[in-house]
Amino acid sequence: MGKEEFVREITNIEEDFAKWYTDVVIKAELADYTDTKGFIAIRPYGYAIWESIQNYTDKKFKEVGVTNLYMPLLIPESMLQKEKDHVEGFAPEVAWVTFGGGEKLEERLCIRPTSETMMSTMYSRWIKSWRDLPILGNQWCSVVRWEKETRPFLRSREFLWQEGHTIHETAKEAEERTMMMLDIYADVIENLLAIPVLKGRKTPKEQFAGAEATYTVETLMHDGRALQAGTSHYFGQNFTKPFEIKFQNREGKEEYGYQTSWGLSTRLLGAVIMAHGDNRGLKLPPRVAPIQAVIVPIAMHKEGVLEKTNKIFEELKNEFRVKLDDRDNYSTGFKFNDWEMRGVPVRIEIGPRDLENGVAVLVRRDTGEKETVELNNLKEKLGELLENIQNSMFEACQKIVSEKTTVAFSLEEIAQNLEKNQGYVKTMWCGNVECEDKIKEVTGAHSRCIPFKQEHLADVCPICGKKAEKMVVWGRQY
Amino acid sequence: MGKEEFVREITNIEEDFAKWYTDVVIKAELADYTDTKGFIAIRPYGYAIWESIQNYTDKKFKEVGVTNLYMPLLIPESMLQKEKDHVEGFAPEVAWVTFGGGEKLEERLCIRPTSETMMSTMYSRWIKSWRDLPILGNQWCSVVRWEKETRPFLRSREFLWQEGHTIHETAKEAEERTMMMLDIYADVIENLLAIPVLKGRKTPKEQFAGAEATYTVETLMHDGRALQAGTSHYFGQNFTKPFEIKFQNREGKEEYGYQTSWGLSTRLLGAVIMAHGDNRGLKLPPRVAPIQAVIVPIAMHKEGVLEKTNKIFEELKNEFRVKLDDRDNYSTGFKFNDWEMRGVPVRIEIGPRDLENGVAVLVRRDTGEKETVELNNLKEKLGELLENIQNSMFEACQKIVSEKTTVAFSLEEIAQNLEKNQGYVKTMWCGNVECEDKIKEVTGAHSRCIPFKQEHLADVCPICGKKAEKMVVWGRQY
Repeated sequence: MGKEEFVREITNIEEDFAKWYTDVVIKAELADYTDTKGFIAIRPYGYAIWESIQNYTDKKFKEVGVTNLYMPLLIPESMLQKEKDHVEGFAPEVAWVTFGGGEKLEERLCIRPTSETMMSTMYSRWIKSWRDLPILGNQWCSVVRWEKETRPFLRSREFLWQEGHTIHETAKEAEERTMMMLDIYADVIENLLAIPVLKGRKTPKEQFAGAEATYTVETLMHDGRALQAGTSHYFGQNFTKPFEIKFQNREGKEEYGYQTSWGLSTRLLGAVIMAHGDNRGLKLPPRVAPIQAVIVPIAMHKEGVLEKTNKIFEELKNEFRVKLDDRDNYSTGFKFNDWEMRGVPVRIEIGPRDLENGVAVLVRRDTGEKETVELNNLKEKLGELLENIQNSMFEACQKIVSEKTTVAFSLEEIAQNLEKNQGYVKTMWCGNVECEDKIKEVTGAHSRCIPFKQEHLADVCPICGKKAEKMVVWGRQY
Repeated sequence: MGKEEFVREITNIEEDFAKWYTDVVIKAELADYTDTKGFIAIRPYGYAIWESIQNYTDKKFKEVGVTNLYMPLLIPESMLQKEKDHVEGFAPEVAWVTFGGGEKLEERLCIRPTSETMMSTMYSRWIKSWRDLPILGNQWCSVVRWEKETRPFLRSREFLWQEGHTIHETAKEAEERTMMMLDIYADVIENLLAIPVLKGRKTPKEQFAGAEATYTVETLMHDGRALQAGTSHYFGQNFTKPFEIKFQNREGKEEYGYQTSWGLSTRLLGAVIMAHGDNRGLKLPPRVAPIQAVIVPIAMHKEGVLEKTNKIFEELKNEFRVKLDDRDNYSTGFKFNDWEMRGVPVRIEIGPRDLENGVAVLVRRDTGEKETVELNNLKEKLGELLENIQNSMFEACQKIVSEKTTVAFSLEEIAQNLEKNQGYVKTMWCGNVECEDKIKEVTGAHSRCIPFKQEHLADVCPICGKKAEKMVVWGRQY
């Protein structure tokens, strides 16, 4: 099978981005559709990326005192209903268990769409005094939300995530925790996944059901659409009051706690695919790649080639996640395309002449650049190259973000900018939901956030002409 | 609060073992009951033990080529029904989702009680040739089984586990994999959890629904009851035929694959509690203990004590999981009892006079023995002591197993032995289920397994008097 034919299997990224995306998900064996409608199976190659994200994130969590725990999968209907906004937000999209062990249940149980209600119920029993605070619980689990239209990783009826839930003595401490966790998310997404983030606060319209404030890390995909990559919520006492999470404070008085929650999910795999991928398929940042380098022996049948490449593989495998492709039923050309499609950051080509010269050829997945290196420098050079690729990929994304970020001063201009190249559009905003609704209605863009880094673009709201003090970033979203 | 009062909170282990067990679960903050009936919340201290088990086990899995993946939580009813024995075994105890997103579902979906059916469905799509084999998938997830009577960790409507599912070219390779995974379970339970295992094959009556053979690692609890701690199943082609997991073999012919599955769960936390615990509470083996040593400063208010213990804590914490208990609202006696109850393997006492003499006192949780060590040897001594405790705890369990293992040659003798001290009872067995049923009916004991290490105790079955070639071990179970 020639290169041309192989590459042709993936839809062109410029022609149909959505189809390109699902092609990559399926062909690179990240996930597959299942017979449970709207539910995916995450395949080993995709799951290994999630494990990298988990390991990196969990370590950061533990450094700031977070402890993991596990709450029930099923939540009684009456518990879900305790916080008014929350139930309104989630009840329409939950799955209900009505039979168990052959009998109809007295009360329906929903599969958790998120666990604020269950965590709050348990916390109210565990917390008595200020000495029990803060409580910094987190769980890695799956949640179910009955989405109408689904897409692998991006919007699936089941997804994997972590949900952290904390209770604090003071509003200030809880607010600081909300920011601390948002900063960890920014770290994960920028430093592990090589995707630049836009940090800010969600408008009230876009915030989490039951939250007092929602903070977000937004990312921009290759096609200029935005993806919310992680959120951190400050609840104030919205849940601690109905769930009676009370504690005796340092003055001996009873008080309600201050709460946060924060989560990131397997959506991040969608972000990695869409922020970095190209017409050859997936493109993985080295730090998160399950295979960082693949060794492809050239003229494998020639004497000594396989033996020598095997030796090189053995030397590299203690320091890098490396694979030797010694399959004898595929051509070298097929292998090149196959590993490019799977997004492996570096290909190491070693042929008989290379061995004679004591060299190998390193090929970058991100730029296609080749470099001949001496075998006795291979380890060092590979390490440098992987770091280099990690940084280049981040910079390449950052370049797209700046190119696709525009400023607008009227509704028409917002629409025009989005039509032209999607992206982030900055405007001033008066703070009224009517203006926000109007922008969504006309342009299809949601407010991404009120960025922490504010700019004063003008004095008035581009919709109503009233005084505007805040800058908002808008974008069409996944 | 004095020592006496504190200890009295836990039911005496000799008086009521079941009550002692739940007291330890709750008081040591391993888990708690929830408002979802039969479902528990695993608290951070309990979850940290599970994380230790996960890390140890997952590493071993990866060493033998296992790759993690993730399959849907929900399984369509028609899929569950594809393998006859399997559906008969599991259908009565599943939970059914009948509504999603506000609408009644066309087909009921069950929450996975185990994932053979879903894994098999997906594998049948992924496997084409012998080159795709073996496929060695595993998932860490939660499963739901609608048990009538529940007990935290031991029998809960939801539990956490790993389920591995593999497909192989040959029966031989699949059988070898079944054993390989059983050996890893034995390693985890003996070397990490310090509990000796009895390895063997389940009788057909006790094997997994749909399996051709089930192998088990059995453990014996403090009260002499047995607990099945992990199982590994060989399916032959029982699932690959109905699920059409076919591959082109090396001869170019189409063939059905050979399958295995294997799992261990949060039940192991129950095993740790019941195999090691005593009247003071939990007793954790050092390798799995979330806190390996706790430093309790004596006369904390005296000048320099807290400062110096803090320094010692800082020195130890890079090498051990160590905690400094500097709480100022509890007495030293309370702290001693509290950490003993939580099963921390070593207590390090440091008071003003110890500091003058440059020493600390190490107290073992397992035996209560005290040892004074010099501060400049503390690191080394603590390391040795932890290793020592790990081994002693294993040996102590092994002693109980030998004391509680008996031989019987009649039904009456089986019953008598069990009445006397529970435990394992060895007998010969003819192989007929009628005799197995009889033993269960009269003595309440299930066959634990046909041990790999066979002994020839007699020539005949103690029930029917017919020729018997196999030795079986019986025991009442959790």
